[in-house]
Amino acid sequence: MERVINRRDLSFQLYDVLDVASLSAYPRFSEHDKASYEAVIDAAERLAMDKFADHAHKADENEPQYENGRVVMIPEVKEALSHYLAGGFHLAHRDESEGGMQLPLVISQAIAAIFTGANASTTAYPFLTIAAANLLSAYGSDAQKEKFLKPMLEGRFFGTMCLSEPQAGSSLADIRTKATPLPDGSYAIKGTKMWISAGDHDLAENIVHLVLAKIPGGPEGVKGISLFIVPKYQVDDEDRVGDSNDVALAGLNHKMGYRGTTNCMLNFGENDACRGYLVGVVHHGLGYMFHMMNEARIGVGLGATMMGYAGYLASLDYAKQRPQGRPVDAKDPASPPVPIIAHADVRRMLLAQKSYVEGALSLCLYCARLLDEAQQTEDADTKKRNLLLLDLLTPIAKAWPSEFCLEANKLGIQILGGYGYTRDYPLERLYRDNRLNPIHEGTNGIQSLDLLGRKVMAEKGLAFRLMMERIGDAIGEAKAYPVLEEQVAAMQGAVDLLSRVTVKLVTAAHEGKTEAFLANSHEYLLLMGHVVMAWMWLRQATVAAAKITDAVGDDRSFFAGKLMATRYFFTHELPKTGPQAALLASLDTTVLDMPNEGF
Amino acid sequence: MERVINRRDLSFQLYDVLDVASLSAYPRFSEHDKASYEAVIDAAERLAMDKFADHAHKADENEPQYENGRVVMIPEVKEALSHYLAGGFHLAHRDESEGGMQLPLVISQAIAAIFTGANASTTAYPFLTIAAANLLSAYGSDAQKEKFLKPMLEGRFFGTMCLSEPQAGSSLADIRTKATPLPDGSYAIKGTKMWISAGDHDLAENIVHLVLAKIPGGPEGVKGISLFIVPKYQVDDEDRVGDSNDVALAGLNHKMGYRGTTNCMLNFGENDACRGYLVGVVHHGLGYMFHMMNEARIGVGLGATMMGYAGYLASLDYAKQRPQGRPVDAKDPASPPVPIIAHADVRRMLLAQKSYVEGALSLCLYCARLLDEAQQTEDADTKKRNLLLLDLLTPIAKAWPSEFCLEANKLGIQILGGYGYTRDYPLERLYRDNRLNPIHEGTNGIQSLDLLGRKVMAEKGLAFRLMMERIGDAIGEAKAYPVLEEQVAAMQGAVDLLSRVTVKLVTAAHEGKTEAFLANSHEYLLLMGHVVMAWMWLRQATVAAAKITDAVGDDRSFFAGKLMATRYFFTHELPKTGPQAALLASLDTTVLDMPNEGF
Repeated sequence: MERVINRRDLSFQLYDVLDVASLSAYPRFSEHDKASYEAVIDAAERLAMDKFADHAHKADENEPQYENGRVVMIPEVKEALSHYLAGGFHLAHRDESEGGMQLPLVISQAIAAIFTGANASTTAYPFLTIAAANLLSAYGSDAQKEKFLKPMLEGRFFGTMCLSEPQAGSSLADIRTKATPLPDGSYAIKGTKMWISAGDHDLAENIVHLVLAKIPGGPEGVKGISLFIVPKYQVDDEDRVGDSNDVALAGLNHKMGYRGTTNCMLNFGENDACRGYLVGVVHHGLGYMFHMMNEARIGVGLGATMMGYAGYLASLDYAKQRPQGRPVDAKDPASPPVPIIAHADVRRMLLAQKSYVEGALSLCLYCARLLDEAQQTEDADTKKRNLLLLDLLTPIAKAWPSEFCLEANKLGIQILGGYGYTRDYPLERLYRDNRLNPIHEGTNGIQSLDLLGRKVMAEKGLAFRLMMERIGDAIGEAKAYPVLEEQVAAMQGAVDLLSRVTVKLVTAAHEGKTEAFLANSHEYLLLMGHVVMAWMWLRQATVAAAKITDAVGDDRSFFAGKLMATRYFFTHELPKTGPQAALLASLDTTVLDMPNEGF
Repeated sequence: MERVINRRDLSFQLYDVLDVASLSAYPRFSEHDKASYEAVIDAAERLAMDKFADHAHKADENEPQYENGRVVMIPEVKEALSHYLAGGFHLAHRDESEGGMQLPLVISQAIAAIFTGANASTTAYPFLTIAAANLLSAYGSDAQKEKFLKPMLEGRFFGTMCLSEPQAGSSLADIRTKATPLPDGSYAIKGTKMWISAGDHDLAENIVHLVLAKIPGGPEGVKGISLFIVPKYQVDDEDRVGDSNDVALAGLNHKMGYRGTTNCMLNFGENDACRGYLVGVVHHGLGYMFHMMNEARIGVGLGATMMGYAGYLASLDYAKQRPQGRPVDAKDPASPPVPIIAHADVRRMLLAQKSYVEGALSLCLYCARLLDEAQQTEDADTKKRNLLLLDLLTPIAKAWPSEFCLEANKLGIQILGGYGYTRDYPLERLYRDNRLNPIHEGTNGIQSLDLLGRKVMAEKGLAFRLMMERIGDAIGEAKAYPVLEEQVAAMQGAVDLLSRVTVKLVTAAHEGKTEAFLANSHEYLLLMGHVVMAWMWLRQATVAAAKITDAVGDDRSFFAGKLMATRYFFTHELPKTGPQAALLASLDTTVLDMPNEGF
């Protein structure tokens, strides 16, 4: 792979669409400007291509092995991470006082995007660590921060999140891992955790597991879940890493893709010698974990986006270079073959990919931008509105890219034909890696229940109305450009459609028709996802329409491409919402009415 | 895997929907009846599960290796094939005089389906041989049949089809392999062939390659292509297998899936010692090859169907057994978890799979039934009509299952969650295997051009009108059942939609707007595919509606399931044709208008 992102597009999204430069008005970012952002993105891209992309294929072909209770993996992973840590990229968003770069989240997400596109598997180790560190920053005690967070920030300890168990994948109410209070205030942890990404390795001095467990005697279900720090190795009072904390690697899962990231079954307390340290107060663990989960969900969406993006660019390069066939209306067999980018169906597959991956990137960066503003603003109302909107968009930012950027990879393979199906090209690996994203950090089915059953209903639909306001603003801005006339009308139509359907569904919910209300929640997720994506494209198109008149050369082509991708999304994709809305509005119960024995 | 097909469904499709028993009225099948069909299907299923399904995982994890110019693979493949050949399954459709079972094609396809579902990779070796043998039966000389076909029927020689070359995957006009006439009437073959499935192995005494090549001085493009028999080893005048025929294995392609089937680059005539034998007359090679290709295309559709089918059943079994979560309206955390089949979104994914795989199977068997009748009837008009309809349906039978049964596998993985993503369950393998099907034997993009550009246009739309007549018949029969009222109306609507769009497109073609006519051909393929699939479901629903009134127990559940899957397809899938039709009717040229530099 020669590149995993179009830097021209990234600049457009960051500075032209999201006006990231204006964040410098906040004191925290006052020392930064576009030049400093670009410098760190340049450095990230160099490192990502030199030390991460280089072993993505090798790591896939040589997955980590379980040998004598330890994990053995190719050395390139540790080397890449040493450069990453030395460059301070794991501290991109951290305060300067902590040794960080004090960058806006939207920039640190752009950096994360580049590393993920280059090699998602290797990147997973520090990314999980960053998320765990963020959780400890928010909820850990000072002593816990000193003991566990500090070495994570120093790059000496890595982190994980341990939620699932073999009998309880998505259903956290049913976890069985026990935390029994000990006289010294710590807890004895006992149980088995499953699907733990980066759950074991020798990449760091220690691994800080953040573990959900139940204290005996607590409430049933999710209300009885507490959160614990459980290090792989004990850390003594002088902060020295010592003996095993009785966390045993029971086995590695052998996956279709994402093979470079260990995925583990871990046994805690097989010898009754596993100590955990309560984070915050008892029985509030799930809430703390969702701090990490929400971040992780947008991370999943961004990862899915970048696998799609890298695949799009690889298939684009191929399509420009590969000569094959002739135009449909010029069949002289003696004429030379044309590059396959000339064929309509190849162009369709490229445009579809472009509309998916650049649209998805736009949404993920928009979410980061919302959080930046929420964190920096001193206006309580702005903060609340941003966080509410972010809450609403999170399931979409997780699920939509994981569906459609996977589809992008499928199209990328198709463009390469037989070559795309071989392991000599990155497409099939990206497709396999990407297939994880609809599953982990809450399946897309769960995202759809979260979206419709919780987020849309929250505060009497306030978040939904906020989104509609913002889309209304975008429509208002787009109206200034006659070239966008059709898209403006279509966007308005889509908004009306979504509103009507939502009212219908919410009414059903209020009438107590819970099952019918949620029966087609996944369809609702797809519907709102497409409306949100149309909004993201309309925002981009508005900027492109404004800039194209004075643009020349490559810039002009770039803006023309943005306008055409918008047109593609509005003509080929957005109309799919029609049947979705009709199905939802009919409160169709086919899936409920099917008898089990009829399958 | 415990099963790869629901035998109750297969019986329903064969005997109730397709009335295969009535084929016994033809002299060729007069000795057969339902009991004899079922006996051979039973035997096939036993062998498929015992000797094919057993090593599907192992073959995937241990792909064939290239060692010292030879292919080394796990021994289970050869053992399975020896049982298969001993059972005479490769001769299922052949005359008794040839040692065959003289079964209708629809039954031999059902048998093929079971083997493919159990292990597509191992099955590919005999299936390619059967297709090559069929071609030689049709076009080989008597001497060629004696020398090459006979040992293929005996199971001693295997076969391949060699079309693609490294520089010409889909574009056969550009193949470069040369066939130079020699004084003895044979040809010197020289060139490189790519993507040759089963192109090399030690499973048989010899491999009969059917090779497309150009005789120097012939016409440019596809009109200069001839077909040659090129054995791996020379066969002397006493039909003894002798020395190498200068066909060298240049390398194995390492694929995402379908790993058990060798896929080869072959060098013919590196030492100028490769002999080929012309099949039929010069420059007619492509026509002969399409005899094999059309058969192979429906075979691809059937294979895709069965990968989807096997995955559907595996995810169904899992969904019935795996307890997790609680109903959306009963959230007492102390209540026991329910099997995940109780969750609406899991039911959606099961119904979608069922509607895809059982619908696709219905189409593939329908195509085989058309060919049976065409081959047996003495009525020239019936024969012609059947063959025309088969021609029209072939690109759909290839492409639709390869799109939607791949989607079925994606949904199957999702039902299993993390487990589905591991190599401990068959879902991810089926998904990887199935990803080949939209690519090989003509990409789906090529299928869409074949459908709209050729098949729909052929004989002034006669095939299209024939299909519409048949759908009209199905609507007429369905009207007898009030329970199908909604589906009848929807089917009529879909037919009208497809007709209007087709007229619009054909008009554009006649006006010389070739590019716009074909710009969205893939969308047309999807549109007609869904209409055809709705037709297939309506046919099934009509039988189910007729039979359910008197049915009890499992039978009743089965018919109820068929009616519900029909309802699912008509409510959740068929409406997708609305936006597709609108796009096509608008002659949208977005994909053409995008400037290359805009990507």
